Amino acid sequence: MTTSVTAYAAPAPKAPLEKTTIERRALREHDVLIEIAYAGICHSDIHQAREEWGTALFPMVPGHEIAGVVAEVGPGVTRYAVGDRVGVGCFVDSCRECENCLAGEEQFCLKGEVQTYNATAYDGSPTYGGYSTHIVVDENYVLRIPEGISLDIAAPLLCAGITLYSPLAHWNAGPGKNVAIIGLGGLGHMGVKIAHAMGAEVTVLSQTLRKKDDGLRLGADHFYATGDEATFTELAGTFDLIVNTTSANLPLDGYLSLLKRDGTLVHVGAPENLSAFNQFSLIGARKTMAGSKIGGIRQTQEMLDFCAEHGLGAEIELINGEQINEAYDRVVSSDVRYRFVIDIASLKA
Amino acid sequence: MTTSVTAYAAPAPKAPLEKTTIERRALREHDVLIEIAYAGICHSDIHQAREEWGTALFPMVPGHEIAGVVAEVGPGVTRYAVGDRVGVGCFVDSCRECENCLAGEEQFCLKGEVQTYNATAYDGSPTYGGYSTHIVVDENYVLRIPEGISLDIAAPLLCAGITLYSPLAHWNAGPGKNVAIIGLGGLGHMGVKIAHAMGAEVTVLSQTLRKKDDGLRLGADHFYATGDEATFTELAGTFDLIVNTTSANLPLDGYLSLLKRDGTLVHVGAPENLSAFNQFSLIGARKTMAGSKIGGIRQTQEMLDFCAEHGLGAEIELINGEQINEAYDRVVSSDVRYRFVIDIASLKA
Repeated sequence: MTTSVTAYAAPAPKAPLEKTTIERRALREHDVLIEIAYAGICHSDIHQAREEWGTALFPMVPGHEIAGVVAEVGPGVTRYAVGDRVGVGCFVDSCRECENCLAGEEQFCLKGEVQTYNATAYDGSPTYGGYSTHIVVDENYVLRIPEGISLDIAAPLLCAGITLYSPLAHWNAGPGKNVAIIGLGGLGHMGVKIAHAMGAEVTVLSQTLRKKDDGLRLGADHFYATGDEATFTELAGTFDLIVNTTSANLPLDGYLSLLKRDGTLVHVGAPENLSAFNQFSLIGARKTMAGSKIGGIRQTQEMLDFCAEHGLGAEIELINGEQINEAYDRVVSSDVRYRFVIDIASLKA
Repeated sequence: MTTSVTAYAAPAPKAPLEKTTIERRALREHDVLIEIAYAGICHSDIHQAREEWGTALFPMVPGHEIAGVVAEVGPGVTRYAVGDRVGVGCFVDSCRECENCLAGEEQFCLKGEVQTYNATAYDGSPTYGGYSTHIVVDENYVLRIPEGISLDIAAPLLCAGITLYSPLAHWNAGPGKNVAIIGLGGLGHMGVKIAHAMGAEVTVLSQTLRKKDDGLRLGADHFYATGDEATFTELAGTFDLIVNTTSANLPLDGYLSLLKRDGTLVHVGAPENLSAFNQFSLIGARKTMAGSKIGGIRQTQEMLDFCAEHGLGAEIELINGEQINEAYDRVVSSDVRYRFVIDIASLKA
């Protein structure tokens, strides 16, 4: 027997989101029912709701930055109890059998992890995301949100936080390392905070100096405008690690020239078109170019614990459900510092 | 006082190489005079002699795959004695002060390492390579060729050998690792031998199956034709490491699809034009694309010791000095299995 819950959904591609009712499944053995308190708005929500990333499933309830409280548990649940503060990120299931799942890297599940929304679960049912009062998720795909982070600023950690934490941890950002973050948006601002907390020397590479004060306040040691050619001369050979949070076609050879020997340029965003570069830019000093995608469940928990320990959360602007469509337009025009978070209590009004 | 020695030189861009006389400097404190026995022909010799890689210095004596015997040493030399079997690779000096030199990665010297030929030494004199009866090199840039490798098959190890050994060692080719080598030429055939000796499972990715028997004989476990589309389907997600030895514009997304999670595609060759790829090909499974360039002195010695221990040398075709120009044409048309080596004794006739 399913439960009807309130949600905001896009009924069709490019249609505004509207308040509606969706069904959540009855609790299975290992399921947790979460009463959602906050849901972040990720740019990818917009791409999918507007069907800009290929065929999508409608009605669509976006949202994969979810924070709330456990309201009920299935009979076999051992990890969580009613009242626990929990989160859900970009996926809610994976095959649990492939080498990547067994390695705790479920985000690279070879069968294909089940996305939190705009996806079909292994049982054939559609998945609906966090713009909703409740969600039912298998306990193995639920994260614990430590005391010490408010749920509102914790929500964006489930995507934006782990998207930056994972490459920073994987490529060893820390004391003595020189790290640059390209782009100071929803992703980039978390990168600055986390890299700084890890002990790295942090530089923001932004198109202009418009957000310089913010960048320095968030933890950056340096802030450079990439629109200024002199930046590339001055910073040549400087960085151990550069994380590119943009989705633009960047001049990759220019950014590769900013790396030291054995340095890495990691893309966590990607343009729709092909990227061009000169292979000699890699060969010249054994540089690497890599990609990274969110993180596994184990690392996502590690990230939440790290953020709690260091007092980190997202910089947010809290909105009501009825402001979602306006917020979407503002995200597209980069008019947000740095993440919209929906107060899910507003859906109950 | 300089010494006149016989050499083969290109007098001008695209002119045939001809026998001539060049001057070698008088021995300095730490210099070693090497009587050259063999010199390999690297494709880059041809690119430079024909001025295909930008302005070059003429007359040019190519050759950076040099094997011979110490004939005389300067008063301060401690590492080598007359009669020692030695080699010289792609560079003969570096600044010795930058962070890369201090790390033993002189091939990435920030001041610019001094190439063995077609370069200007720090004192302003031109450098001349191994197509010559003798060469004078600072002992710090001389390698020891262990007993157990003939000098003729050792010569190509100084460039082709280290070019493949370095990335295979750096990215941990070994037991349990699945390694592919793109291209079975002068570089690729050393990659197959070395990766096999390191204990990896080795696959050759060649345009056709024409060299399959050779590939398997040299140590490959598998041999696939990349001209066959089915290869990319069959091998999807297979490799931990792929080393690209070609200089062609390859379909990079296709090759990236052959990597496992966290796998690396390393380029040791590069096309003149830009390469195109989709950043999502990296993001999908945290893959990396890298470049590698020969190796430092310490690692080059390690490579020679490894090759001696495993009985590895290049597959060569020995030629006389007067056959160099013909050999160049054959290299360009890929008509060599797998390296021409000049018998320098023929220059003395």
